[in-house]
Order: sequence, then C-alpha cells, then structure tokens
Amino acid sequence: MTDTFRAYNPATGEALETAHPVATRAELDAMAAASAEAAAALAITDPVRIAAFLRAYADRLDANRASIAATAHEETGLPLEPRLAQVEFDRTTGQLRQAANAAEDISETSWRRPIIDEATDIRSDRGPLGGAVFTIGPNNFPLAFHGVSGGDFAAAIAAGNPVIAKGHPLHPATGRLLADAAAAAVAETGLHPATVQYVAHCTPEDGCRLIADPRIAAVAFTGSRAAGLRIKAAADASGTPASLEMSSLNPVFALPGALANPASLAEAWVGSVTLGAGQFCTKPGVCVAVGSGADAFIDAARGLLEAAAPGVLFSRGGVESLAHGIATVETAGATRLCGGRPADPGFRFEPTLLVVDAATFLTRVDAIATELFGPAGLVVTAADLDEAVAIARRLDGQLTATICTGAGDDDGWNALAAVLRPRCGRLLENKMPTGVAVVPSMVHGGPYPATGHPGFTAVGLPASIQRFTQARCWDGVAPSRLPSWLV
Amino acid sequence: MTDTFRAYNPATGEALETAHPVATRAELDAMAAASAEAAAALAITDPVRIAAFLRAYADRLDANRASIAATAHEETGLPLEPRLAQVEFDRTTGQLRQAANAAEDISETSWRRPIIDEATDIRSDRGPLGGAVFTIGPNNFPLAFHGVSGGDFAAAIAAGNPVIAKGHPLHPATGRLLADAAAAAVAETGLHPATVQYVAHCTPEDGCRLIADPRIAAVAFTGSRAAGLRIKAAADASGTPASLEMSSLNPVFALPGALANPASLAEAWVGSVTLGAGQFCTKPGVCVAVGSGADAFIDAARGLLEAAAPGVLFSRGGVESLAHGIATVETAGATRLCGGRPADPGFRFEPTLLVVDAATFLTRVDAIATELFGPAGLVVTAADLDEAVAIARRLDGQLTATICTGAGDDDGWNALAAVLRPRCGRLLENKMPTGVAVVPSMVHGGPYPATGHPGFTAVGLPASIQRFTQARCWDGVAPSRLPSWLV
Repeated sequence: MTDTFRAYNPATGEALETAHPVATRAELDAMAAASAEAAAALAITDPVRIAAFLRAYADRLDANRASIAATAHEETGLPLEPRLAQVEFDRTTGQLRQAANAAEDISETSWRRPIIDEATDIRSDRGPLGGAVFTIGPNNFPLAFHGVSGGDFAAAIAAGNPVIAKGHPLHPATGRLLADAAAAAVAETGLHPATVQYVAHCTPEDGCRLIADPRIAAVAFTGSRAAGLRIKAAADASGTPASLEMSSLNPVFALPGALANPASLAEAWVGSVTLGAGQFCTKPGVCVAVGSGADAFIDAARGLLEAAAPGVLFSRGGVESLAHGIATVETAGATRLCGGRPADPGFRFEPTLLVVDAATFLTRVDAIATELFGPAGLVVTAADLDEAVAIARRLDGQLTATICTGAGDDDGWNALAAVLRPRCGRLLENKMPTGVAVVPSMVHGGPYPATGHPGFTAVGLPASIQRFTQARCWDGVAPSRLPSWLV
Repeated sequence: MTDTFRAYNPATGEALETAHPVATRAELDAMAAASAEAAAALAITDPVRIAAFLRAYADRLDANRASIAATAHEETGLPLEPRLAQVEFDRTTGQLRQAANAAEDISETSWRRPIIDEATDIRSDRGPLGGAVFTIGPNNFPLAFHGVSGGDFAAAIAAGNPVIAKGHPLHPATGRLLADAAAAAVAETGLHPATVQYVAHCTPEDGCRLIADPRIAAVAFTGSRAAGLRIKAAADASGTPASLEMSSLNPVFALPGALANPASLAEAWVGSVTLGAGQFCTKPGVCVAVGSGADAFIDAARGLLEAAAPGVLFSRGGVESLAHGIATVETAGATRLCGGRPADPGFRFEPTLLVVDAATFLTRVDAIATELFGPAGLVVTAADLDEAVAIARRLDGQLTATICTGAGDDDGWNALAAVLRPRCGRLLENKMPTGVAVVPSMVHGGPYPATGHPGFTAVGLPASIQRFTQARCWDGVAPSRLPSWLV
C-alpha cells in the first residue's frame, strides 16, 4: 500500500487532482542498488555521451516548455511569464548545456584538473564519487534548482555520477514531467537506465536512511535551515559528503552616501524583497541603514510595500511560518510599519516592513536575525558606522552581503567589507543580490550556516561540479590503464 | 596551577626530564581572541610578506637542523639519519618553501583561481577563512606533519590564515623548538604576532571547545580514527570545516603475475610494512594474495619479518594498542605466523605476520580489517580474482590502494581497479604506497573514513591549500576595492 499526497494551487488554495506516490523504503533500497550499477557503468562511459545526454535532456525540456512551465505555474503560483516560461526555463536548459560542455571538457583548465608529473610518474585528476548523488531540491525554483533538472543535478551528472533525485512535495506534477524527459533522454543516449532515478517524495526518516546507505556517495540539498540541519546530521553520522544550502539573511548595509538617494535605494531594495514573493534564498531580508538618512529610506520603502500587492507564497505552511517569524521579530523588539497578515485568496501574504534600532538588534540578535521567507523586510537603523560594524560582526555565515555606497563612503566600505568578506560567499556593491548569474565567476555559497562548507559554490560551472568529485591520484600506473587526459 | 606532562624516550622507555605545560581554557580563549586580530591583519597583508615568513621560517629550521632532529630522535625513536635529519627535515622545509611560492602566486593557475567575468562585472577568487586554523598533528611525523611546521600549517598560512597549533604530547620538546623558530620568523618578517600560536597540549574537552569557538575557522587533524571521530563530531556540531586524516589499511592486491616473483614482492611489501616501525599512515597493512602463488609469498614475507629487528614504537600505549589489535585479528580467525609480542628495551615490538583466508576475512571484516599501527602485516589469501574483488568491495575508504601486476594480469587490474578507484585517494601499480611525494599531482586523501571528505588532499601544493580557503565572489564591486589579481 503506497501512501500518496496532493499538491495545491497556491493562488487559489485548492488541492490539485493528481495523487502522487510517497516512495517506500523498499523502493529506495532498490534505487540505491540500481545506482551502484549505474555508477560502475558511468565510470567507463565516454564523457562525450554524458554530454550528449545533458544536451538531449535540455532539448526535450525545450520541446515541452509550455506544458512544464504551465504545470510549475499552477503548482507554485510563480508568474508564468517571464519568470517560469522564460527566465527560469532558460536558466535550467542553459545550465544543462553548460554542464554538457563541462562534462566533455578534458583540458587542463577543466574541472578534472589533470596534473601529470613525469618525473615521479604520479598523475592526478578529479573523477566521480563512485555512487549516487542524492539530490533534494527546494520549493522555490521548481526547474532551475529541482533535484532532477537543476544545478545540483547538472553538476552531479557532469562529473559522471548517477543521481537519485527527490522531488519537492509542493510541485510533484512538475517534477514528474521533468523526470520523464530525463528518462527519455537517458534512453535516447543509451546511458545506464539508473543514471537518473526519480522519487516524488519520501519520509524524512527514509531520506536520512538513504543518505547513510554506503551506495549513496553524496547528498545535495537546498532548502530550509531546519531540514538542512537534519540532513547534515544524517550525512555527518555516516561521513557522507553533503552540499547544503540552507538559509541566509543577505544583509544590505546602506551607507550615508547611498541613503542620499532614498527613493532609488528603497525601490531597489523593495523590488528585491518582493521578487518572487520574497521567496529567494538571496532575498535581502535585512537592510542596515547607517546615519540620519535612514528615516527617508524607511518612509520610501514603506510607501512602496504598502502599495505592493500581496505575494503568493508556495504553501499554507509558508504563510504560517512567515506569520510566526514576523511575530518573533516583533516580540523581540522590532516595530511593524505595514503588512504582517495573510491575504486571500490562496496562500497570499501582505508585503511587510519591520524596523528596529541597532541596540535592540544587538541585544536580541538570535530572535531578530530570523530569515523571513516571503515578502517581508527588516530595516535596522544604525546611528553610525561603528554600530553598523557591530551588527556585521554578529551575523552568521551568509550567501551574500551587500554594501550600498555613495560619495564619501570609502571608509565605510573598508570597515564593513573587512567584517563581511569572510562572512559571505558573494559581496556586492550597489547591486541587489537576488539575481544569481550562471557564470563561471559566480559563488552561490558561503560559510555555515548559509551552507555546509565555505569552499564550494552551488551555481557557476564548472566550479559547482567540484562538490561531487573525488580527488584521484594514479601512481606508477601503466599508461594503458589511465584516463585519456592523463596520458 | 598549570598541569604539566613529560615525554619519553621510546628507545629506552625512560621519561625525559623537561616538564611541558597543558594549556588552560583561559589560555586557549586568549589565543582565539588574538587569532581574530591576526586574521584581520593578515587579510590586508601583502602575500609577498606571508611568503617571506614561510621562507624565513624554513631558513631558521635549517639553521637549527641538528638540534631539532636530535630532539625529535630522542622523543620519537625514529632514526636520526637519514629519516629525521635528512628526509623528513628536507620535506618539511621544502613544503614551507613550496607554500611560500604558492602564497605569493597570483596567477590564473594559482590556488586563488581568479576568474573575471567582464560582461556581468562578477569576479571570484579564493581567500582566507577569516579566522584561525587549529592544527593538530600526529605522533608519526614530528616535523613534516607537525601542527606548527607541517603540511597543514604551511597550507593554512599560505592561504592567509593564522594558525593555532597544538603539539603532540609524545614530542613536546621538538614542538617547542619548532614553535620558537616560527615565532622568531614571525617577528623577523613583521607579521601580526598571533599569526602563529602554539600550545604544547590541551585536554580533548578543551580542544573540542576551541573547535566550536566561532573565531576558529577550521580544524586540521592527522591521527587515529578514534581521536579523529571525536574531532569530527565537535566540528560537525559547530559547522566548522574540518580536514581530517584518520586511518587506512592501504590494501595491496597481488595478482598471479606479480606473485610469480614472490621474493621481490615480499621484499617490497615487508620493507614498506616495517619502514618507520610500520607507523606510517600509508603502511600497506593488508596484502591480498590472489591464486596459488600466495604460499611462496607468505613464506618469503615470513622469512624477512622473522629476520627483522623489533621496531621502536612511539609510546607504551602504542605497544599495547598494537598487541590488542593483533589479538583482535587473531581472535577473528587469522593465524599469526611470527612476531606478535612487545620487545625490550623501551617500546619495541616484534615484526609480525598474520594470515587469513578470504572466506574468514569476508565473514569478520569489521574485526579483521583493523588498522595495526606498527610493524605488522596481514596476508589474505584469495583463491581467485572473484574472491579478491569481493574483498575489495568490503573495504572502507582508503588513502591508498595498490595493485601488483605481472604478465597476464590485465583482466585482474580492470576488475579490481573498478572497485578500488572510488575507494581510495591514490591508486598504485607495482609500487608500495609508503612514500608520499610532495608534488602537485599527489593526492593524500580519500573517502571517509580515511579522511573527512574525498575532494581534498593534505599533501601536494598548491592543491592542499584549498582545504583552508573560502570561495569568494565580488559582484559589482568598484575596482579600487578589489584584490590586485581581480582587476
């Protein structure tokens, strides 16, 4: 007897018709066994064929663009145009094609990093992990970060690892369409059939059990801190490498020179806070406004947020969680200037602005520095640069940190950047962090607890592939036994 | 009141005169605070000065070579010539000088991996972690892997991180001499005085507390699995990146073609098993002999081990641990053909040979696959290639795996390498694994539990530096604020 579940249309709050299966433990065990065979097969597969699969998959997605985007729209409430059908779709297929290029790249500058030391006859490269990568995608990018089509998937496959992908229970029909296209592309290119395996959902307990299975070589997760820490604990216990992207406040520090133009700064910040209903991992949830220009900025931001339409969140749980988070921040001493309530129909929430002074923030940082996943932002007023630096020092590891500067802000940049640089993966100047370009120089990562390790990036090829590779050395091995790029 | 401890001369078993301090918790806290200042200072220090420090330190070690090597000899029982005074000393200063070259390398192929994307104005590189690296070295390389002079130290400093180094309680006078030379070199080159801090010893509890301190950015450990797992647990709980090198059987698979020359193979294997009294992390502790040639190999190995002098272990605890491990392997079904007992004077142990058949090994792999740290080796007899492959499949992650081949062994190589490649960091053919060359193509790493992550290497510059770096992105940042290598 298989358990099933249904997704909702967040725009209406109504349950969708199709029932989707929850995988049983026996099914997960069978997938682990099949993935071990696939790993062995992939180890002797020409990288050109892995690249061909990635391209064929991207082509099949493109061919089904309309139906996939429409399904994702129905299940997530995200805008169909341009967000899903263009922006996220192009990002997804673009990542797969970039990964294809990386997969077949055997040059010295490729992710394989071949090194040949003739004098000692010692060679090294990077290769697949020898087992499946278990990918667990988030709710907020149903295509570009999906376990069966997103950046983790593309990187894991490019390195030659099979993938067991778990869909997200909020958009199972989307996942099914993606997984079907992947399976067709696997068949078309003749890869081992277990190269890509998909499960719509499983219980957290069974998921953690799968992570501990020795046939699972790594786990990749993007999502909430609570779920991420549970996965981290399971991976730590079994020594399984984990790529975790968990949470981030993405603080923005607005220096006096930047606050000289309060309207344009407020427009940029509010636009970034409300984009995708504020459900981005790079949403700049906290803005530290330094000096006397803070008031005008707050007024401008409040005006914009009051005028903005409620955002559609992904789930009823998300609405409850956001309301709870806002209450936590208010109880700790912040003042709510607008919004704060759920809205109809469906899973909507009012754009929300909270403000707090630096002294209160510093006293109750654990409560106030809560990630609010949705269209809500907190302004922290700092009397001067010293207070701003004190706030920066109290921040955990972040995906991004932004410093907005204007004339005369060089000292402020220097003081803040010294503190923020080691606390974030990406440091921005005068640019909101929400967009994450898929370019080789991107770092979508950061120190714990934003991610599990500061040395990696989840976006940007070929660097993101490193997460799913093993450093391999070949010492005195006969040339006939070596990969072609080491001869 | 500071606790103190004394080291022993393992060759005589007698306690040495000098008392060494155990750091208090307050002292460790003060070191963490000082290291935070040093990290901030190093972040704006010209890499050329960091390189100058590493070279000055190497020069000071060379100037004190005789006294340092003699002290290490007294405290460890390792041969003075050529092991300590030449081989390990040259390796140590060579690593520091290689790290100096890496520290000041700002090229595209350097560990900094600068990437500039002009179109998006997004740049990335690798930089220091923003806090101290806590280095904890092993007993078995008092210079080349020492927390204050070894490979982890050199890599952490080269990346621009301050180091808090813990000495090993078995060779504290050696550590003191090294730390004094490091401090003098820090002063000479004008780095922040807390760039290198040294503690002779601390309790495991206080060490784990230090790992959890947010001012500690990473921990690097080389040593036993038991201690490594304790450190891993502390690091996992606080999200602290950990570079762990823990344990390895370093299996050797001798195929029929290689066993056609039993005497030369036995000479190579026994030499590697007994080198440094078998106290290498890369000691090939298990040899799987495939086919009917096993008997002649075992006879030859037994002859060599019976003729070899007892090896001096580092400590009385090591003698007890080895005896206990041998008893565990015997109880699980192996037969002891020679050795097995402690010997006088001091902490000596007889060269030991154990044999077991494949069926017994496979039935009790958890007990029989015990790392025996000392001059002891286990031969597993496998009737055929299938049995050998079955054994390989049961092995945990390893630092190294070796396949010895001869004429007609190509199929054997292919079958075994497919299983062993993802299970080890370094795969060797017809070469014993004990030596670990410090070349860019070296990988001294491997899957858990050999280390904590398969993607890294602890030896081989510049790759070893990656362990102690953060991936950093600069997005839209004004050129005047960027590191020179990103402009």
